[in-house]
Amino acid sequence: MILRNAWYVAAWSHEVVENQPLGRMLCDEPIVLWRSAGRAVGLSDRCTHRGVPLSLGKIVDGVLQCGYHGVCFDAQGACVKIPGQGVPQSALPARAYPLVERHGFVWFWFGEAAYADPDLIADAHVADDPGWAAVGERILVEAAHELIIENLNNHSHVQYVHPQIGSAGMADAESHMQRIGDHVESKHWLLNCPAPPHFAKAGNFTGPVDRWFDTTFVPPSTVVLDLGCAVAGTGAPEGNRSEAIAFAQLHLMTPETATTTHYFWVYARNFALSDKAVTEQIRVTAQETFEEDRVILESQQRSLNRDPKAPLMNIAVDATSIVVTRVREEIAARPLRELTPAAR
Amino acid sequence: MILRNAWYVAAWSHEVVENQPLGRMLCDEPIVLWRSAGRAVGLSDRCTHRGVPLSLGKIVDGVLQCGYHGVCFDAQGACVKIPGQGVPQSALPARAYPLVERHGFVWFWFGEAAYADPDLIADAHVADDPGWAAVGERILVEAAHELIIENLNNHSHVQYVHPQIGSAGMADAESHMQRIGDHVESKHWLLNCPAPPHFAKAGNFTGPVDRWFDTTFVPPSTVVLDLGCAVAGTGAPEGNRSEAIAFAQLHLMTPETATTTHYFWVYARNFALSDKAVTEQIRVTAQETFEEDRVILESQQRSLNRDPKAPLMNIAVDATSIVVTRVREEIAARPLRELTPAAR
Amino acid sequence: MILRNAWYVAAWSHEVVENQPLGRMLCDEPIVLWRSAGRAVGLSDRCTHRGVPLSLGKIVDGVLQCGYHGVCFDAQGACVKIPGQGVPQSALPARAYPLVERHGFVWFWFGEAAYADPDLIADAHVADDPGWAAVGERILVEAAHELIIENLNNHSHVQYVHPQIGSAGMADAESHMQRIGDHVESKHWLLNCPAPPHFAKAGNFTGPVDRWFDTTFVPPSTVVLDLGCAVAGTGAPEGNRSEAIAFAQLHLMTPETATTTHYFWVYARNFALSDKAVTEQIRVTAQETFEEDRVILESQQRSLNRDPKAPLMNIAVDATSIVVTRVREEIAARPLRELTPAAR
Repeated sequence: MILRNAWYVAAWSHEVVENQPLGRMLCDEPIVLWRSAGRAVGLSDRCTHRGVPLSLGKIVDGVLQCGYHGVCFDAQGACVKIPGQGVPQSALPARAYPLVERHGFVWFWFGEAAYADPDLIADAHVADDPGWAAVGERILVEAAHELIIENLNNHSHVQYVHPQIGSAGMADAESHMQRIGDHVESKHWLLNCPAPPHFAKAGNFTGPVDRWFDTTFVPPSTVVLDLGCAVAGTGAPEGNRSEAIAFAQLHLMTPETATTTHYFWVYARNFALSDKAVTEQIRVTAQETFEEDRVILESQQRSLNRDPKAPLMNIAVDATSIVVTRVREEIAARPLRELTPAAR
Repeated sequence: MILRNAWYVAAWSHEVVENQPLGRMLCDEPIVLWRSAGRAVGLSDRCTHRGVPLSLGKIVDGVLQCGYHGVCFDAQGACVKIPGQGVPQSALPARAYPLVERHGFVWFWFGEAAYADPDLIADAHVADDPGWAAVGERILVEAAHELIIENLNNHSHVQYVHPQIGSAGMADAESHMQRIGDHVESKHWLLNCPAPPHFAKAGNFTGPVDRWFDTTFVPPSTVVLDLGCAVAGTGAPEGNRSEAIAFAQLHLMTPETATTTHYFWVYARNFALSDKAVTEQIRVTAQETFEEDRVILESQQRSLNRDPKAPLMNIAVDATSIVVTRVREEIAARPLRELTPAAR
Repeated sequence: MILRNAWYVAAWSHEVVENQPLGRMLCDEPIVLWRSAGRAVGLSDRCTHRGVPLSLGKIVDGVLQCGYHGVCFDAQGACVKIPGQGVPQSALPARAYPLVERHGFVWFWFGEAAYADPDLIADAHVADDPGWAAVGERILVEAAHELIIENLNNHSHVQYVHPQIGSAGMADAESHMQRIGDHVESKHWLLNCPAPPHFAKAGNFTGPVDRWFDTTFVPPSTVVLDLGCAVAGTGAPEGNRSEAIAFAQLHLMTPETATTTHYFWVYARNFALSDKAVTEQIRVTAQETFEEDRVILESQQRSLNRDPKAPLMNIAVDATSIVVTRVREEIAARPLRELTPAAR
């Protein structure tokens, strides 16, 4: 289920280049993005004359000219030129999507334009906050965004899927889950455990650590992770992170189609900000980690496609993702007029 | 919509070789072609015994022997041998298609055999007329033949899609369109304009030219182009082509399926007939031009497949292709007994 | 039609390795196989928690642990561990398949477990009988197993499809066909004919031979071939094989899906048992032969897919395969309680 009245990431800001149309399937609709006098704009990627993708065209005098017969559309989608004739009042416009650029991303509003309140955009400040050093990419995953949301909201998979960042016992860690408005938080501690390899290397830990793994779901399709570890017994659970390293991860899932996803991720740290070796270690670990997830997620999607009605069971570690699913269903059923920024 | 009672090109004559079966999907039906004592013949490419393509078999004693169990069919499709038994009266024949060879092409009649009048075959004489030097090929385009017919009958696309042969202002050139029987002609002039690069090179034009671009649609699926240019002001619009170069293009579109097309093209000239460098220039330009069309057409087809009911609009430069579509619809609705050669 | 209450080959025994999950689509269902303390076991390859293939997991303490969240299943399919909680009574089991290992194959029962009588397994003893030297492989054919069964039960295709082992006149050889319970035998002799190339080489035949080609269909999906040749006139038809070479071929077809097949084959001989050159000649000939069949079968499948209702005809050489089809239909219609080992 693609939540309709919501902001999704369309692209990294650097992907949308001045006067260069970029075609991308988003929320099962073809959309063309470009930048005009610095401002990112987005239209339905389909000329209203003969259906050709407008992303095959070019920007001429600030408007998007179809590459087939030269019909032109402005940034609001109005048809402003039809070669060989004047432009009649009845000329079919292209649908324009509200776009906002924030924290290094171009966000687009998929639903009713009148409700496109930028305050509803998920907080992604760590992506470009000078207090954090961030790496990030976009990968295309052949699995539904719901499966990725579920993946991230079930902490126990880290233990089984990701040897570099998982810890034995994560599945048994107590979840402290809390719904706050439409956000769902879930916090986990593992005390006095071996540092997982990636953390040990990044933080030079040689002895046991206290590690935390906290998730926050933000509608429609974002999961923010706060994770890290501290030298065991130095008070991290009580809030002292002076002996800790911390990472903030953003997971921004935009449906490409109902069963494929543009997965934008950001992996930020608040230590060794200018150490390029650490940046590189994080990038490599992140890529390996996402490939581990990809194998699971794409196999799961194929399995569900093959037999969508086979019975499945919920287990204890699904508690958070079950609430997340319920929140998403509530939002889908909610009348448009009740669309307001989430509680926090 | 595939017009059923009509001649289509099945193959170049040189593709149909003595005693060598050639399987090809034509009009959404598998057909096997071969040449027997010089004559091209064609059957349904499906053995009536177990459905195996007959094109996997071989010609034995002048008949086509299935490669699986040796059942044989003659050029009329009669089952003439069943190994291991006699041939019963009830043996299922293979469907035979009326075939005519003309101007270097093998044409097949897709509909009721009784109406297969060779006079209905589109005029393609420039393909093998000694007064013309012709190059040609077959390409497979993943777009419906209707989209290619429309492409060719809208002159304005040349300006936007084909930099080597297009001219600024083509979209604004007046169309003189005329329906003559089931043919649709459309003529365009651009006076005193720069010669497009391909024409300038082929004709050694250094100054401005008068160029023409005339199209004729011939049912079911042929478009003939008469195009060229003359030194500006030398009377080409009045009929004097002494200072001109002229090209005749044949575009013969045979549906492979409802949404893919065997596109046979011929690019002929009536000057520098034996100049191989000109021939090569034309071939290269033609191939580049068709690849430019392919990108548009295949993207358009995918776009239409994705959302076949999205509204589209007609514009002024569609005038000819709208008439062409109407002619094709008339033909489709016409009773078989009214099938007669077109008015010219 | 996949006969449901029947034994099929799941894998060669050597493919199922101790503690290594092997995922394979069998009878249109995903199945995971592994070996535990020497015994081959098989479950539905789908975790009952979130649908992820269990074959992505690993064997831990003798049970299969899902690679996503660590849910574990034993060899009977019981869910025996759910990380993060105890295992409730209601935990969904994975379906377990009865498995029997015999003659170098792992066989699985696809239907009701209560009827999984190992006496119903087709006789494949030549695959590991010390009196025979056997080579064999598994190939994946993109054609329905029914088409392969039909292929093998129509002797005449050998003449047309397989130049190394076919003989002119095979289509005309008389078939002596006999149904014995659910088995269907068919015997053919060609007397005083040239030895086909593969036989001539394997048996050093320089003159004419008497050759036989006998098939036995064994439900659900096995065809056993007894084929060979003797110096002409040395009494082979009367049972004297002293001047003969004989091959036993097993063809064990397991549906992967309704239209694709795992084709397990065994090519055994009872002469020159330790001659590696003969083994290699047989392997190469067998591979070539199966590739010849593959071209036909996969083309036939595509042809039938395209037009499943086009009329086809039966001919004399189909006699055996028509009876085989009837037997399979009888078995499909038979009440489960009548499931008993076949008559011989």
